[in-house]
Amino acid sequence: MSNSSILQSIQQIASDLANIEFLFSASELSDYGSDYTEDLFFPPTAVCFPASTQEVSAIMQRCYAHNVPVFTRGAGTGLSGACLPVSAGLVLSTKKLNRIVDIDVKNLTVTTETGVVNGVLKAAVEAVGLYYPPDPASQGSCSIGGNLAHGAGGPRAVKYGITRDYVLNLEVVLPNGDVIWTGANTLKNSTGFSLTHLMVGSEGMLGIITQAVLKLIPKPTHELLLVASFANLHDCASAVNAVLLSKYKPCAIELMEKSGVEISMVATQSTFPTHPEAEAYLLFAFDGFDGDDLFLQAEGIFGILDTYNALDILPSPNADTANAWWKVRRAIGETVKQVSPYKEEDTIVPRSAMPGLLLKVKEIGGKYGFQSVCYGHAGDGNLHVNILKNNLSDSQWTVEIPKAIVEIFEYCKSVGGTISGEHGIGLVQASYLSIVMGESHYQLFRGIKATFDPKGLLNPGKWLD
Amino acid sequence: MSNSSILQSIQQIASDLANIEFLFSASELSDYGSDYTEDLFFPPTAVCFPASTQEVSAIMQRCYAHNVPVFTRGAGTGLSGACLPVSAGLVLSTKKLNRIVDIDVKNLTVTTETGVVNGVLKAAVEAVGLYYPPDPASQGSCSIGGNLAHGAGGPRAVKYGITRDYVLNLEVVLPNGDVIWTGANTLKNSTGFSLTHLMVGSEGMLGIITQAVLKLIPKPTHELLLVASFANLHDCASAVNAVLLSKYKPCAIELMEKSGVEISMVATQSTFPTHPEAEAYLLFAFDGFDGDDLFLQAEGIFGILDTYNALDILPSPNADTANAWWKVRRAIGETVKQVSPYKEEDTIVPRSAMPGLLLKVKEIGGKYGFQSVCYGHAGDGNLHVNILKNNLSDSQWTVEIPKAIVEIFEYCKSVGGTISGEHGIGLVQASYLSIVMGESHYQLFRGIKATFDPKGLLNPGKWLD
Repeated sequence: MSNSSILQSIQQIASDLANIEFLFSASELSDYGSDYTEDLFFPPTAVCFPASTQEVSAIMQRCYAHNVPVFTRGAGTGLSGACLPVSAGLVLSTKKLNRIVDIDVKNLTVTTETGVVNGVLKAAVEAVGLYYPPDPASQGSCSIGGNLAHGAGGPRAVKYGITRDYVLNLEVVLPNGDVIWTGANTLKNSTGFSLTHLMVGSEGMLGIITQAVLKLIPKPTHELLLVASFANLHDCASAVNAVLLSKYKPCAIELMEKSGVEISMVATQSTFPTHPEAEAYLLFAFDGFDGDDLFLQAEGIFGILDTYNALDILPSPNADTANAWWKVRRAIGETVKQVSPYKEEDTIVPRSAMPGLLLKVKEIGGKYGFQSVCYGHAGDGNLHVNILKNNLSDSQWTVEIPKAIVEIFEYCKSVGGTISGEHGIGLVQASYLSIVMGESHYQLFRGIKATFDPKGLLNPGKWLD
Repeated sequence: MSNSSILQSIQQIASDLANIEFLFSASELSDYGSDYTEDLFFPPTAVCFPASTQEVSAIMQRCYAHNVPVFTRGAGTGLSGACLPVSAGLVLSTKKLNRIVDIDVKNLTVTTETGVVNGVLKAAVEAVGLYYPPDPASQGSCSIGGNLAHGAGGPRAVKYGITRDYVLNLEVVLPNGDVIWTGANTLKNSTGFSLTHLMVGSEGMLGIITQAVLKLIPKPTHELLLVASFANLHDCASAVNAVLLSKYKPCAIELMEKSGVEISMVATQSTFPTHPEAEAYLLFAFDGFDGDDLFLQAEGIFGILDTYNALDILPSPNADTANAWWKVRRAIGETVKQVSPYKEEDTIVPRSAMPGLLLKVKEIGGKYGFQSVCYGHAGDGNLHVNILKNNLSDSQWTVEIPKAIVEIFEYCKSVGGTISGEHGIGLVQASYLSIVMGESHYQLFRGIKATFDPKGLLNPGKWLD
């Protein structure tokens, strides 16, 4: 179908559904052509803002009839370009699907529309003493639907698991407009193939998730941070596994290279317990219901960190300081971007392979001449590798660096890891997927896709195409 | 294909693969015609015992070429008849896939073939200080592969989650004999549609799971049980939610009706802290690394249980007693069967709906004239309802009781629950699946099935057919 006939079809749909907001003007559309991935820009043909499941269904019925491609967009904070409208079609924004439908205090669950921002949901359930643990760095702006579409993680995954672990039931609008609930509002479910778990991480390619029933837990009342500095990356990464093999149970273990911390401190004007000889830091968080116990746990790991030559180990004296330290950690991704464009690789390996992965990344950096800033969820073996453009030429950037990325990913695979822990494949990792997936996988993926979306209308042009 | 030509094809395959054990004689086959579901009996055409993934692949290549149906069988302890060879075909036993391949102490993971018995795996990892939490009542005999195929749970799911939560990566033999690993050996993975999570609970209908990489945790060093007795079921069930809304965190909360406890005590010759006026019991387990803390936690819930009129609350004085109490709980399913044949319904509802579900089951029992023994994982809202045949006529049993079961399941659905929490749908729940699934679900299920198994050779005749 030509671009102009797609536009005409969308205009027809917008006119049929006059109660739903549609945007068509170029100036308005430009906000919907990017996400947080590199500097990509693909302005869509049009954007719509359904405010209910029924409206999503009405739009999809018509898009299905008219063969209009649809790109679902949450808050646009993705890091793999998964939501970008790379060809003509309609961006379906979930922005107005912003109702928290029900907080069920008795069952420790929440039913929410998926356009709700992660941090808004967190705050709402915390107001009644409950807690939704998944906490991507972008929690202040990312949407629950985006979290579901990517199987998002976050620092607290070490203790609490990831988005996937909190999903009980999903309301999904299928490409033809049919609406299903994938499961039940129960903690366990062995009733048919698990469509719920298949939808998680499906990157808007199988259906549009309009509501989710999520598990909650009682909100921990206390938190304590501990920052340890190390003179070398290998010691720093090695200490992580030693702590996790002990009886102490941090809720987060974040590794940060010096350069990332320094850039983020300046940009956020926040404090962080730096050490002049440090090459890297570990940030540990402990949470629970007993402040004394947290101090005991934090104290308990001092000896372990000493074994790995920690330069300094500092607990957070109060909540304000802890917030500042978290801010420095969370802002690394966006503040490094202000220094130089970068490609972010979401490497993940079995945890004990992380010291080796760090050395390998630096070795490959030496070979290809790039600077990298590494940081991330060390407790899960999930290391974000930001490869900075700095003074690299465009051809180095577009031709040579992808070769370096292949080497990094091949190393990940060789130690039992893979190419994305929590960001998804989307657009920018599509060409690397065959490093870890063979033709049998692709055949299964294509069959699943054709089952849900026989016309191939949902999020075309991504890793499956 | 006729039964005799299926037999001939299997004989041909057995002769091609002379190193693999095949059984054909009726006396030997009779052991492979039942599982733990009611008194069903479907002896297969033949049974084979591959001892490696390569042998499974070799068998499947030939079955695919000859269009021979294949029924994968773990330890045969299933409760939905999912493994039964209901029509002519080859039972593929995983009994010889019994190697624990690697216990990775550094990464807290284990790679195991799927014929390994759950309790054998548990013991092996406990020997090196690690712990695999999923603990179906049949843990002494059920296989890891069966646990995966059904998404099995167990008492400790309250604190630790279910089988699904421990699966990192699966080796799967596809119907055509191709072998894939579904994911990576990592704690997180956002790389393509999650085939790993789709395989969990797929009941042998999509592929044959030959190896699994499972997550482990450090083994808790202490356990304490607490049994509370109640004069009425509603108080008993209501106390569960109150405890889970407190700051105390039991690892298991099991509810047992008096009759189940009494039958199991006699059959197992084990002690249990009964109370003459009790109608039902709650068994709480607490575990951790600090014995004093467990006592404090157990003490902490005394007040809550008092509020719900507990008759008596007793902690386990030592490990032997705790083991006896667990034995009584675990044996209820099999010992009640010695009293009367029964149909076991694996109801699951949002936890707070469980008191209402119990009343409803008893009300429906009154209407249809059946006795039920209810017990199960109260902390998850997962109630096993054993409907006893006792003196019911065969027509009551086969015509009237299914109507009662429909009423029970419709009630579950009406409160946000579903028809199986951990046993699966298999054969005996197939006719009830449409209570909770509509035509859109079936279409998706059929498409997924056709993608993996285009010839429909794996486990035919179950809930999808």
